[in-house]
Amino acid sequence: MNKNEDLTKQIKLMSVAEMNDLASEIKKDMIDTVSRTGGHLASSLGTVELTISLYHVFDSPKDKIVWDVGHQCYASKMLTGRWNRMETLRQYGGLSGFPKRHESAHDASDPGHSGTAISIAYGYAKARDLSGGDYSCVAVIGDGSLTSGVALEALDAAGESGTPLIVILNDNRMSISRSIGGFSRHLQKLRTSNIYKNFKTNLKKMNSPKGVHRLSAIRDSLKYKLMPRSVFDELGFKYYGPVDGHDIESLTNTLRFVKSLDQPVLLHVITQKGNGFAPAMEDPTKFHGVGKYDPVSGATIHSDEKTWSETFGEIITELASKDDRICAVTAAMGESTGLSEFSKKFPDRYFDVGIAEQHAAAFAEGLALNGRKPVVAIYSTFLQRAYDQMLTEICLQDLPVIFAVDRAGVTGPDGETHQGIYDIAYLYSMPGMTIMNPRDRKTMENMFRLALELGTPVAIRYPKNCPGTFDAEPWTGYPQVIKSGDDVLIISDANMLSECLKCAGEMETRVVEGWKPQTYAVCDIGILKPLNMEFIDKCLEKYKYIVTVEDGTVYGGFGSRIAARAAETGRCKVLNIGWPDSFIEHGKISELRAVYGMDSRGIAEKIMNFIGGRS
Amino acid sequence: MNKNEDLTKQIKLMSVAEMNDLASEIKKDMIDTVSRTGGHLASSLGTVELTISLYHVFDSPKDKIVWDVGHQCYASKMLTGRWNRMETLRQYGGLSGFPKRHESAHDASDPGHSGTAISIAYGYAKARDLSGGDYSCVAVIGDGSLTSGVALEALDAAGESGTPLIVILNDNRMSISRSIGGFSRHLQKLRTSNIYKNFKTNLKKMNSPKGVHRLSAIRDSLKYKLMPRSVFDELGFKYYGPVDGHDIESLTNTLRFVKSLDQPVLLHVITQKGNGFAPAMEDPTKFHGVGKYDPVSGATIHSDEKTWSETFGEIITELASKDDRICAVTAAMGESTGLSEFSKKFPDRYFDVGIAEQHAAAFAEGLALNGRKPVVAIYSTFLQRAYDQMLTEICLQDLPVIFAVDRAGVTGPDGETHQGIYDIAYLYSMPGMTIMNPRDRKTMENMFRLALELGTPVAIRYPKNCPGTFDAEPWTGYPQVIKSGDDVLIISDANMLSECLKCAGEMETRVVEGWKPQTYAVCDIGILKPLNMEFIDKCLEKYKYIVTVEDGTVYGGFGSRIAARAAETGRCKVLNIGWPDSFIEHGKISELRAVYGMDSRGIAEKIMNFIGGRS
Repeated sequence: MNKNEDLTKQIKLMSVAEMNDLASEIKKDMIDTVSRTGGHLASSLGTVELTISLYHVFDSPKDKIVWDVGHQCYASKMLTGRWNRMETLRQYGGLSGFPKRHESAHDASDPGHSGTAISIAYGYAKARDLSGGDYSCVAVIGDGSLTSGVALEALDAAGESGTPLIVILNDNRMSISRSIGGFSRHLQKLRTSNIYKNFKTNLKKMNSPKGVHRLSAIRDSLKYKLMPRSVFDELGFKYYGPVDGHDIESLTNTLRFVKSLDQPVLLHVITQKGNGFAPAMEDPTKFHGVGKYDPVSGATIHSDEKTWSETFGEIITELASKDDRICAVTAAMGESTGLSEFSKKFPDRYFDVGIAEQHAAAFAEGLALNGRKPVVAIYSTFLQRAYDQMLTEICLQDLPVIFAVDRAGVTGPDGETHQGIYDIAYLYSMPGMTIMNPRDRKTMENMFRLALELGTPVAIRYPKNCPGTFDAEPWTGYPQVIKSGDDVLIISDANMLSECLKCAGEMETRVVEGWKPQTYAVCDIGILKPLNMEFIDKCLEKYKYIVTVEDGTVYGGFGSRIAARAAETGRCKVLNIGWPDSFIEHGKISELRAVYGMDSRGIAEKIMNFIGGRS
Repeated sequence: MNKNEDLTKQIKLMSVAEMNDLASEIKKDMIDTVSRTGGHLASSLGTVELTISLYHVFDSPKDKIVWDVGHQCYASKMLTGRWNRMETLRQYGGLSGFPKRHESAHDASDPGHSGTAISIAYGYAKARDLSGGDYSCVAVIGDGSLTSGVALEALDAAGESGTPLIVILNDNRMSISRSIGGFSRHLQKLRTSNIYKNFKTNLKKMNSPKGVHRLSAIRDSLKYKLMPRSVFDELGFKYYGPVDGHDIESLTNTLRFVKSLDQPVLLHVITQKGNGFAPAMEDPTKFHGVGKYDPVSGATIHSDEKTWSETFGEIITELASKDDRICAVTAAMGESTGLSEFSKKFPDRYFDVGIAEQHAAAFAEGLALNGRKPVVAIYSTFLQRAYDQMLTEICLQDLPVIFAVDRAGVTGPDGETHQGIYDIAYLYSMPGMTIMNPRDRKTMENMFRLALELGTPVAIRYPKNCPGTFDAEPWTGYPQVIKSGDDVLIISDANMLSECLKCAGEMETRVVEGWKPQTYAVCDIGILKPLNMEFIDKCLEKYKYIVTVEDGTVYGGFGSRIAARAAETGRCKVLNIGWPDSFIEHGKISELRAVYGMDSRGIAEKIMNFIGGRS
């Protein structure tokens, strides 16, 4: 077996035993490789047999397989000519951790965030119908993703259409945290209902045409009709399952059957996150997105240094113990946003709404309207799903909702779809939204205290890594000049503060020919919106050059407000530095900063170009 | 009856006959008043009996009634001390066309866009539970809104919670267009199913405690259990209904019953949009949001002038007749975005997905991935719901999806929640998104042709009113100086072009003491993103002052890019003019422009302050 080759054609000829062997090999290799690269191990381990079965039954890339989110795509990568490059996974210049059309024709779409696969596969199907094409369109979606609004919208639309479309519900009872909600309970019922046990029995007889006929007949039986039907049936899908997602024989039989159907079908497949690796089966949340670990024991290196998420969790738990109006809302991210302790201490005031960011925001709105102080903890990149509710309802009513915007700024190895570089821009255009960015633990604490006092919408954004330590006075709400200097003022958000301080230090010692030495001041802006315009105006008068640096897209950031003021008054030259108006791929944060000129060296070069242009 | 008074206490004491009389009076008055003010007549007429029944059974404002969207709130306004001010509806300084907390304590929330009422009422309910409060939380939501993702997310969450919560499904089989999708078909089944006919019969016996008991018992009967259950039951709600939404006796009986229940309940109420006014019953879409009409015949004044929406519809239909890859996607807005003709001519390529903007975008993505050229027509203010899919999937994959952004800019009488002033800002931060704004029909046509050629994500935004006529050469893709001048350059988007030309003309004839006369050039920027930087750089060299004017929030618009360039080069003073960073209330467009200094006079004043500040 040549691991550089597309193996999908070979898989089509394999026996069940051969496919089982292949599954074992993939899992072994995946556990080993990801132990060095880090990545979304648990989901990908859970879908190895499903992936092989899909390639066995369907003719990818003629048949279109759309993976939702893409957390579960590693086996697919390994089987489609990328096995030997798995060592480069999530590393700069290497394989993406998600499906990417430019990597392989088997990747039918580049998924963004969870829940869109049904819509996309349905779009594929409708386009196929228009062209009279004859191939299958398949969406593979997890039970956690299924309850995101866009997935439910798609079920509603596709179910009614009657268009042949196969939705494979990869039910592992987990999103990143444990799946919750009415749908989840409904799936539990389907998993244990008698009629579906019959389905399982009949599956065994599937290798004969009679067996297939029988499977079809079950659904039309009187008994079936008298049973509680699945929600999917009510929406226009034919529901089949559940099938054991680790039993390749059952899987291939059922997939062959649903492939033959001429209408929207939902196949319920039960998988186990982390299957094949005991530590991941025991703690699938930990192994959802994991760093390096021991491939035998599963032990991870635990740093004593507290992350921003953990720091947030401690602060908000402490504040909540003194103010019982504080509630925490999260969208399937309780652990990873640092809310585990909060959820244990204040279970009544802790709301994990599942992957449902829009509902999270609107629900927080209701809490706030009724006297509570909700803190909504969501990653920067996922919070954008709640744009409409934040703007048109929460800001419009000036409600006391605090958004704890985790993973703000470039986050690294997850790549384009997970960089938190748009929040400043999208939050900035919301009237009445205050945006803060703490540099250290104490500042974060003070910012949450201030936000609670304000009683208006506030977003407190912080990055993925750990709080820094700075030689500076405590933050009091005002922009702080952390390092003084006379000629050039660098105004930075907290995320970029270390790079800016380093840059300023280096610049002052540099001797460049034909270039008079400059001294550099560095300011931590603290509150990105509203800007302290009195301070900004003073700076525009005092300095010859101002450089703004932010861990966000350069379009629409706080820097552009300072530039606008400078352009209006004509007082000072201003350079805005931020991430360029393009998508930032995967890699280490430090690598990406170097590539895009966002490290101290790159910032220095930009400043030299800027100042040099005039002198 | 004093129409200035809050009548809810009186309603609690009324007999069914008295309430029926009140309903007739409200309808008569509403038809009459709205004929002069314009407004959301059909929805509000459909819920008169429901509103009266709610105020009869519940103790508002102690009990919380959350209206979804608020299209249906006129009867509520009339009954809560605002009847006499209905003549001021949707007019500047007058009553809002939507619930507003500052108008009345009975308005439990200021709704934004459709589908959030369940989340909000559930938030209210959870906050109540935390405080040990004893009152009801009620969401009133239409069947069209119910299929928006956020509403489905909320059903999922609230259903599981077990918290007492009442969702009233106001089923009129319409969103703005006819409701569609699997849920809609499911509701149709519930409407006609036998078990629910029994419910209706038993309702009649409801005035005795025995009747109430009976109603409860139906649900637990074996027969009921064998019947197909509602999707709502599967999600954890107790479903009751359907009830005739124009039968006050049935309504009040059922509401009293569901009020007594200690868990999440969904009450299915059947109403008729436009009930009580024949023309609105016959054409509820026309009377959804309607201008002035004849209160007897329902005749509306039809202008011969084509709106932008109609113009778009003609252009896209024409283009689609020559290119069968073009598909149209809309979210419950087929008629109002001008797609009626398209839908008739190309039914296979026309997709109304219902109120499901996220799905609309992701579905378009699938169409585009499979060789189609989707044109997604959605109002500016609603398109923001698809922010995540546009950014993280469509732009990321650089797909040929065209967004026809209707109602861009300030739209007037609908107020804060419907002003299309955020699209430039939110689209601008999406890498690879081209943003265009046509000034006249021919330019719009050329822009759509160009967009189709580009084969990348393009947003073409246009306002609510009608295309203008300008004395200018045809648009060729470049910024166009429409009026020449030497000192000040006004760079405008197309929406503001007329005001800018008028302003420039006026400014040149003005004599201001101590002020040297200036000549003004006016440029139609055409493409807002990417800016033609060669042109901008030339302008920064040539002019002393540049003023940018755009029909969008001033934060994050195209003007801020020009200001950033000016600040970086230090070449020219630039003033950005746009809508301020606050919410723009309801009123006529012309009134709002005057109030916010966005008419020619206001722009002139801002320019004088800007230039005067230096001279």
